[in-house]
Amino acid sequence: MAVPPSTYPRRLLPLFLGLFQAALLLFFALFVTYDEPSAQAEDTSLVASQVYSTFPFFQDIQVMLVVGLGLLLTFLPRYGFSSLTHNFLLLNFSMQWALVLQGLLHHFHHGQIHLDLHKLLISEFAAVTVLISVGAILGRASPCQLLIMATCEIPIYLASEWVIVTCLGVLDVGGTITIHIFSCYFGLGVSKALFRATQQPLHPKESPTLSSDLMSLVGTLILWVFWPSFVAVLCQPGNAQHRAILNTLLAMSASAITTVVASSLLERDGKLSPGHLQNGSLAGGVAIGVLADLAIPPVAALALGSLSAVLCVLGFRFLTPLLGRKLTLHDQCGIHNLHGLPGILGAAASVVAVLVASKDTS
Amino acid sequence: MAVPPSTYPRRLLPLFLGLFQAALLLFFALFVTYDEPSAQAEDTSLVASQVYSTFPFFQDIQVMLVVGLGLLLTFLPRYGFSSLTHNFLLLNFSMQWALVLQGLLHHFHHGQIHLDLHKLLISEFAAVTVLISVGAILGRASPCQLLIMATCEIPIYLASEWVIVTCLGVLDVGGTITIHIFSCYFGLGVSKALFRATQQPLHPKESPTLSSDLMSLVGTLILWVFWPSFVAVLCQPGNAQHRAILNTLLAMSASAITTVVASSLLERDGKLSPGHLQNGSLAGGVAIGVLADLAIPPVAALALGSLSAVLCVLGFRFLTPLLGRKLTLHDQCGIHNLHGLPGILGAAASVVAVLVASKDTS
Amino acid sequence: MAVPPSTYPRRLLPLFLGLFQAALLLFFALFVTYDEPSAQAEDTSLVASQVYSTFPFFQDIQVMLVVGLGLLLTFLPRYGFSSLTHNFLLLNFSMQWALVLQGLLHHFHHGQIHLDLHKLLISEFAAVTVLISVGAILGRASPCQLLIMATCEIPIYLASEWVIVTCLGVLDVGGTITIHIFSCYFGLGVSKALFRATQQPLHPKESPTLSSDLMSLVGTLILWVFWPSFVAVLCQPGNAQHRAILNTLLAMSASAITTVVASSLLERDGKLSPGHLQNGSLAGGVAIGVLADLAIPPVAALALGSLSAVLCVLGFRFLTPLLGRKLTLHDQCGIHNLHGLPGILGAAASVVAVLVASKDTS
Repeated sequence: MAVPPSTYPRRLLPLFLGLFQAALLLFFALFVTYDEPSAQAEDTSLVASQVYSTFPFFQDIQVMLVVGLGLLLTFLPRYGFSSLTHNFLLLNFSMQWALVLQGLLHHFHHGQIHLDLHKLLISEFAAVTVLISVGAILGRASPCQLLIMATCEIPIYLASEWVIVTCLGVLDVGGTITIHIFSCYFGLGVSKALFRATQQPLHPKESPTLSSDLMSLVGTLILWVFWPSFVAVLCQPGNAQHRAILNTLLAMSASAITTVVASSLLERDGKLSPGHLQNGSLAGGVAIGVLADLAIPPVAALALGSLSAVLCVLGFRFLTPLLGRKLTLHDQCGIHNLHGLPGILGAAASVVAVLVASKDTS
Repeated sequence: MAVPPSTYPRRLLPLFLGLFQAALLLFFALFVTYDEPSAQAEDTSLVASQVYSTFPFFQDIQVMLVVGLGLLLTFLPRYGFSSLTHNFLLLNFSMQWALVLQGLLHHFHHGQIHLDLHKLLISEFAAVTVLISVGAILGRASPCQLLIMATCEIPIYLASEWVIVTCLGVLDVGGTITIHIFSCYFGLGVSKALFRATQQPLHPKESPTLSSDLMSLVGTLILWVFWPSFVAVLCQPGNAQHRAILNTLLAMSASAITTVVASSLLERDGKLSPGHLQNGSLAGGVAIGVLADLAIPPVAALALGSLSAVLCVLGFRFLTPLLGRKLTLHDQCGIHNLHGLPGILGAAASVVAVLVASKDTS
Repeated sequence: MAVPPSTYPRRLLPLFLGLFQAALLLFFALFVTYDEPSAQAEDTSLVASQVYSTFPFFQDIQVMLVVGLGLLLTFLPRYGFSSLTHNFLLLNFSMQWALVLQGLLHHFHHGQIHLDLHKLLISEFAAVTVLISVGAILGRASPCQLLIMATCEIPIYLASEWVIVTCLGVLDVGGTITIHIFSCYFGLGVSKALFRATQQPLHPKESPTLSSDLMSLVGTLILWVFWPSFVAVLCQPGNAQHRAILNTLLAMSASAITTVVASSLLERDGKLSPGHLQNGSLAGGVAIGVLADLAIPPVAALALGSLSAVLCVLGFRFLTPLLGRKLTLHDQCGIHNLHGLPGILGAAASVVAVLVASKDTS
C-alpha cells in the first residue's frame, strides 16, 4: 500500500487489524450460529426462494462496492492501487464490525445470534457509509487513520439509523438520508478535524491522467448500472420493488444527460469535465433513494435526477473551491457534491411527496 | 469530451440535449404513469415473480451496453475516454427517445402510458441500434453529429422493426435482422454520407496500443459473457428460453475458437490479430439471435458460430480494405464484419431452418 | 498472441484447433440433442424455474472465469493481452473437450446425449482445472504446449473426480479437492516436466508495474465477489445453499483482512505486497469449498479463511523461493500458495468436521 511517507509506526496497522480479527473470532465462537436446519420440505423451498430473490441483488451490490466504488476512487493516477486496496480493506473491516455491533445491539437479549443473508446485507449497508466518508480524505490519511474513522463511524451510523428509521419512522429504502447525507457530513467533519490548519497544495501525483480518468469512469458506469439493485433490494416485493427499480433507472438516466448539459455549459471551452461526468451521473441515484418505492409519478423521478445532476455540477464548479478557500475544508473526491447536495434535495422532495400524498387522501 | 478540433458551435450540444430533456419531462408529466398499485396479494406475487425473472437479465444487458460495449470502443488509445462517454450518452439519449416514440406510436390511443420494466427493455433494444451504428464513424464525428444520427435512427428502427416483426411475422428474438443488420447498414450509410469524398489518412492517435487493446478485449469478454442474456430475455420462459441460452453459449464458444484458427492462418506471421479476436468472438452471438429459441439441433448452433467467425475474420482481412479503396467507405470499428456479415448468415440460416421444419411437419 | 519468440511451427496451433473444432461438430451432429420439448404447462414452468435458479449463478461463474481470472493473470505488464487471450481460448477449448468426454463417458450407453445448462456447468468446472494449472507456466509455454496440457488434463480430471466423488463418496461442493488441489499439483508437475533443467532468470518483461498490478487486483476483486456463486451453484437448494453462500462470504472476508495483517508483518518495510493481496484474499474461498454446505458453526468459516490466508502469504514469502532454489520448480503465479496450501487445509478441516459430526451423532 503506497501510503504517503509518514512517521506513524508501521506495525500499528497489522497489530490493530490482527487483534480485531481475533476478537471477531471469539465473538462468533461465543454468540453466532446459523438458523436451525429444518427438515420440512416447505420450509426448504421457502429458504430457497428467499435466496433466489435476494442473492442476485446482493451480488450486484457487492460488485458496486468492491469493483465499482473501488475503481471510481482510482482517478489519482499513482494512488490508484492504494485506493482500490483501502476501499476493499475498509469494506471488509466495516462489514465485520457492523456485524458485531448489530449482534450486540439488536439480538443479544435473544441469546444466540442467527446469521443470515439479510443480516449480512444490512452490515454491507453500514459499511457503505465508511466507503463514502473516505472520499473526503482519500490519499491524505494513513490506513490507520482510515481504520480508526471506520471504527467510530459504524456505531454512530447504527445509532443515527435507529433514530431516523425506528424512532422517527422515516421511510428511506435507498439510504438517501441514513447513508448518503450522514456519511457525507461525517466525512467532511473528519477531513476538517484531521487537516484543520493545513492549506495543503495539491500533491503532484494528485492530478488525473487520461488513463486514470478512464478507469474511474468505468467505476462510475458499474455503479450506475447496479444502483437500482442497491435501492430496490430492501423494498417490499411486488409493485413497490418494481417502482423502485423504474424510478431509479429514470432518475439516473436523466442525471447522465443533464450532467453533460450542465458541465458543457459551465466549462469555458465547452468540454465535458471528466470529474463532473464521474459524479453527476450518479447524483440521481442518491436523490431518488428516499422515495424510490413511493407511488410518485415517473416525471418526478426524471425531474429529481435532472435537478440533482445540476446541483452536483454546480457544487463542483463553485461550492468546493469556496469551501476550500473560506473554511479550509478539503473534499478530495467531492463527496459533498455527490452525496451531500443530492441527498438534501432527495430528502426535501420526500417531504413534499408525503405532504402531497396526505393532502390527496384527506 | 475530446472531440476533434472542429468549427461547429460548442454550445449546440448542451442546448440540444437540454431542450430534449425538458421536452421529455413535459411528455412524462402529461402522459406517463406507472401501473395502478393493486391491493390483491396474488397480483403482488405475480409482479414480484416477473421482476425476479426479468431483472437479472436486464442488469446483464445493462452491463453489456454500458460497460462492455463502451470498453470495446476504447481501442483507439487517446480517444478511449471519449468513446466510453459517447457510448454512455448515446445509450441514455436513445433509450429516452425510444420511450417517447414508443409511447406516442403504440400506446397513445389507450390514453395514459403505463411504464414497466418490459417497456424500458424494449427501449434499450432500440438504443442498441444507435450504439452499433456509431462504430462506423467513431472518432470522426462530433457529438452533435452522433446525436442527430441517433435522433433519426430510432424512429426508422421502430418502423422497420414493426414491418419485419408485426407485418411480415419474422421471429427474431435476438435481433439479428431487426437490430444487427439494420444498424450496420444504417451506420455505413451515415459514414458514406458524412465522409463522402474525403479519403482521410488514419489519424495518428487512431492506432491501438498494448494497453488500449487490453481494455478493448475486456469489453469483448464482458459482451461475450452476457450475450446469452441479451438473446434469451424476450423468449418464452421454459424450454424456448433454455434453448436460446444453450444455443447462444454454443455458438459463441465455437466463434471464439474458430476466430483464433482463422486469424492465425490468415496473418502472415501466424500471430493472432487483436482486432480479429475482439470482434470474431462475438460474431456467433450476432448470427444465432434469429434462431436461438427454435428447436434446431445443437450442432447447427456450433456450425453457425464457426462460420460467422470465419466470415468476420475474412471481412476484416479482405472486405474492409476493399470497401475503403473502391467505395471510399470507412468503417472505423468494422461493424460490417461483426454485425453485417454474421447477421446475413444468421438470416439465411433461419430461412433454411424454417424450410426444413415445414418439410418435417408436412 | 505475443508468444515468446520460439521455433515451433506457427501453423501447428490453428491446425490443431481447426481439427478439434471439426471433430466437435461431427460429434455433436451424431450424438448430441436437446431435451424433448414438452407440451405440458407444468413441465414448462419447471424448466423455467430451473433456468431462473441456475442461470444467475452460471453467469456469475462465467464472469469469474472469463473476466476475473483473465485479469488476475495480467500482472505481467507486456504479457497482459496474451494472458487474457490464452485464458479465454483455454476456457473454451477445455469446456468443449470436457463436453465431448463427459458425453462419451457417462451418457453414451443411453444413446443420444441430452444437453442442458447443468451439463455445460459441469464442463465449465472441468475447464477451471486447466485455467488454474496454467498459472504455473504462464508466459513461459507456447499456446500449443498449453493446448496439449489441456488435452491431457481434462480426461485425468474427469477420472480423478469420478474416483473421489463417486467411488470414495467425498462431498466437495466447492471443488477444493477435486479442482484446486488436483489442478495445482498437475500444473506444478507440468512446470517441472517442461522446464526441468533450466534455471531461467526472470524475463525482463515479467516484473509487474503499477498499472498491471491494478488490473490484476481488479481481477482478484471480481473473483472475490462472485466466489460464493461458484461454491453454491451445485448445492442443494434451501438451507444448504444458504449456508454455502454465508460460509464462503465469511471465509473470504476473513481472508482479505488476514492477508493485510500477515503481509504487512512479513514485509520488511511494512508495506503490503500486491501479489499477496491478489492471492491471499482468495485463499479462504479455496479452503471453504469442501465444507461450505455442511452445518459447521460460522466461526469455523472465519477461522478457516484467516488460516488459509496466513498459509498463502507464508507460502509466497518462504516456500516459493525455496521450491525454486531446491527443486528448480518454477511457479509463475504462485498457484501452490493459492490453490495447493489452502486446498490441503480445507481438506484437513473437512476430515475434522466429519469426525466431530460422527461423534455428535453417535
